[in-house]
Amino acid sequence: MSKKIRTAINPTRAEDYPQWYQEVVKAADMAEISEVRGCMVIKPWGYAIWENMRNELDAHFKETGHLNAYFPLFIPKRFFEKEAEHVEGFAKECAVVTHSRLEEDSKGGLKPAGKLTEELIVRPTSETIIGASFSKWVNSYRDLPLLINQWANVVRWELRTRLFLRTSEFLWQEGHTVHATEQEAKDETMMILRLYTKFAREYLALPVIEGEKTASERFPGAESTFTFEAMMQDKKALQAGTSHFLGQKFAKASNIKFQNQEGFEEFAWTTSWGISTRLIGALIMAHSDDNGLVLPPTVAPKQIVIVPIYRKDEEKKIVMAFISDLQQKLQAKKYHNEKLRVHLDDRDLRGGEKLWEWIKKGVPIRLEIGPRDIQKNSVFIGRRDKAPKDKNAITREKFLQNVTQILDEIQNNIYQKALNFQKENTKNIDDKKEFYAFFTPEDQDSPEIHGGFAQSHWCGDPACEKAIKDDLKVTIRCIPLKKENEAGNCIYCGKPSNQRVVFAKSY
Amino acid sequence: MSKKIRTAINPTRAEDYPQWYQEVVKAADMAEISEVRGCMVIKPWGYAIWENMRNELDAHFKETGHLNAYFPLFIPKRFFEKEAEHVEGFAKECAVVTHSRLEEDSKGGLKPAGKLTEELIVRPTSETIIGASFSKWVNSYRDLPLLINQWANVVRWELRTRLFLRTSEFLWQEGHTVHATEQEAKDETMMILRLYTKFAREYLALPVIEGEKTASERFPGAESTFTFEAMMQDKKALQAGTSHFLGQKFAKASNIKFQNQEGFEEFAWTTSWGISTRLIGALIMAHSDDNGLVLPPTVAPKQIVIVPIYRKDEEKKIVMAFISDLQQKLQAKKYHNEKLRVHLDDRDLRGGEKLWEWIKKGVPIRLEIGPRDIQKNSVFIGRRDKAPKDKNAITREKFLQNVTQILDEIQNNIYQKALNFQKENTKNIDDKKEFYAFFTPEDQDSPEIHGGFAQSHWCGDPACEKAIKDDLKVTIRCIPLKKENEAGNCIYCGKPSNQRVVFAKSY
Repeated sequence: MSKKIRTAINPTRAEDYPQWYQEVVKAADMAEISEVRGCMVIKPWGYAIWENMRNELDAHFKETGHLNAYFPLFIPKRFFEKEAEHVEGFAKECAVVTHSRLEEDSKGGLKPAGKLTEELIVRPTSETIIGASFSKWVNSYRDLPLLINQWANVVRWELRTRLFLRTSEFLWQEGHTVHATEQEAKDETMMILRLYTKFAREYLALPVIEGEKTASERFPGAESTFTFEAMMQDKKALQAGTSHFLGQKFAKASNIKFQNQEGFEEFAWTTSWGISTRLIGALIMAHSDDNGLVLPPTVAPKQIVIVPIYRKDEEKKIVMAFISDLQQKLQAKKYHNEKLRVHLDDRDLRGGEKLWEWIKKGVPIRLEIGPRDIQKNSVFIGRRDKAPKDKNAITREKFLQNVTQILDEIQNNIYQKALNFQKENTKNIDDKKEFYAFFTPEDQDSPEIHGGFAQSHWCGDPACEKAIKDDLKVTIRCIPLKKENEAGNCIYCGKPSNQRVVFAKSY
Repeated sequence: MSKKIRTAINPTRAEDYPQWYQEVVKAADMAEISEVRGCMVIKPWGYAIWENMRNELDAHFKETGHLNAYFPLFIPKRFFEKEAEHVEGFAKECAVVTHSRLEEDSKGGLKPAGKLTEELIVRPTSETIIGASFSKWVNSYRDLPLLINQWANVVRWELRTRLFLRTSEFLWQEGHTVHATEQEAKDETMMILRLYTKFAREYLALPVIEGEKTASERFPGAESTFTFEAMMQDKKALQAGTSHFLGQKFAKASNIKFQNQEGFEEFAWTTSWGISTRLIGALIMAHSDDNGLVLPPTVAPKQIVIVPIYRKDEEKKIVMAFISDLQQKLQAKKYHNEKLRVHLDDRDLRGGEKLWEWIKKGVPIRLEIGPRDIQKNSVFIGRRDKAPKDKNAITREKFLQNVTQILDEIQNNIYQKALNFQKENTKNIDDKKEFYAFFTPEDQDSPEIHGGFAQSHWCGDPACEKAIKDDLKVTIRCIPLKKENEAGNCIYCGKPSNQRVVFAKSY
């Protein structure tokens, strides 16, 4: 038996993947379970990642003509009843407000009082309440397209929760748009999907596969739902975000009509689309290792952390002066149009302790600077995309000159690593037995990690889809947009099919 | 009788101040009442103002060492019961979640189901739920100070609502900090108050008076509450934001303890502070006129709007080419460290119609550009701090050279106008009869507008404070920080007093 390498996160991914995930979140100090069932507390390090994602996406939404607005947290029950599939999809898990105050009960405690005449639902998504406004805002073709986005909290009651991945309350953005024609609404749906996937690949270093959901996996009430799916390191898929073409269904439910150029009144066409704090879970599970979080430089709250190394007070003086100058020069630089995010860790702790903390927090570049480095006019650099002990001296000048290039290199490495992992674990499978074996754990020591993306033929029959789901807990993640028309046979029933779809287990 | 001047907003301030306010909000397309009782929809123009405020304040919070985080929307009922004054203050108006799903009732409608074992309160403020986390986060003096801020929605059930000023749901930020000593917590409380008042004066062009609240006006559970108050154009006060020193009360209620440097355990000292979308209401009521919203350039979603003027197609070509070049040059400029926010209104509408729309929306600078202006190489400028018809030609070069200076001038004018109004309507009053007359409407045609800030002596007895409130609906807005020790007699009872306080009617 080989000697086990000491890792900062225990258990490791191979030992217990779900537990490893929880430990990474904890070690990076990103979030914690709250005392409110199903709800999480997003701690500063986790929230800073969300802020970066939000600012980046928000800029893209605005560039493409979308405006932010804010709609009520509560949805009257009767709104919910308007769209049958929609209510079916959300009624089973929603927070219901029934009273408007608390009053003392006979035991000196508090009881609900002020019963509402109509119950209010805490929004699980806002199509119906936003639709009520849109029906007033849209009158003529001149009011279209109406392109609105909202950053908000939503609630979907969950019993089994996992930080970021599945919580009763989460933060998200929801785009809601109204168009004069079917084609314009479809174009918007696809434009947003492309905006999302570019963001995932370039900003989050997440390789994703984009495609359409099957009917059974659609957003409740949508005509078509497009998704982008990322592979986690346990080879499961995670739906990273969705963009929905809603046809005229919600326009009819909310009475969103407009007078067209010919003077006739018609129903509008709508879309909705969103990503949430779940993406933080995807980021963690796609890139992190057995030493903790790994952050692509673009999204990292701190891109560079500087750890001074000294023993005596006179050393400290020299080291801090050198660092102060370096820090200023670094902060004057830009990376992706923003100031470099540099942090000096001057806490009264041992250097090694600090360095491990920043490794666990996923900071891309660690600089250790002590008296000997200064003598050589160099810095000691550790990169999060390399092993913790793989550190190098580099002259101060060269580092200053190349720092953004090094960050780009790290960003690319993280992306390539995830892409390679996805490719290695994506297989064209045409044999049913092989398909079933692919999704059945072999290694009983780590049953969590098996499978991957199976690209297999599907005849289009929901019955085959359901049978596979029932047998293996495997679902069709998407019908890829990159179509390779190719004749084949349904992996389940053997009937003819002309396209492969992506099957996987998922979060 | 003099001929009435046509105004864009009807009624005018003098005719019906409350209705004027609603009409300004509507004409600027900032917000609307939603179909959910007491909740508003913040429309894009209103939300963009909020985003600007948020970004500005957020940068200041971060500069002063605060970190953003996010805590649950729901607060378990038992948390509420921990701090007696706190529950007393909020229990009468809160949304209570009692169920976790909807199910079909016998009539085919939906009824609440999945009754919760413990009711959840939608946060009216988060001291108790954040305290539960802080009690885990704080262990040693090394963990202090803990400086956290949250941007969130909160709910306080309101029956009589007014857009921005009083709504059941509103957006805000709430800072929550923990300190090792009483003095540090008090210093934080005052540092934030100064940060807020600087923001109010410089960013919102709002003259404010800062001071301490009397015991009866304190935040429920606070040891002391500091406020900054602005005067609206109906001479009423609006509490623009507050900063609370909470002593050890909430630390004791939430069990926030730390080990001090000597190794002994003690309770920590906490603060909380916040501003909300109510500030948008203050902004509207302090600066707007009978033609609609007036926005200080710093906070305006668009600082400059360009309206092309042409009749024929050949004119259009020349005008648009000139504008396109000008717009590029403007957008390359910065104002207050951000890109100038320039909007080209190229909609297919008449020029006059467009110009009035931007007047009503409060845009600081309107540029009209037609063929004749281009011949003279000039632009036609209208400023929102001047009358709509007071417009001037200025050469293109001079405008480009002086544009930020012009914006500064507008910002200053708006501030000075509000400051003069406040000064004119602030009086030292030492006679009880005069005091009562000051707060009693004389003009029955516009009873809304009367009074102002009365700086009068108060003996410190809550009974006098209450008597005045009962008689006149006038409250002590604050005990000003700028103390001028001066002997005098309580305006109500005549007993000795050594300081004037600010009395006013308020929102």
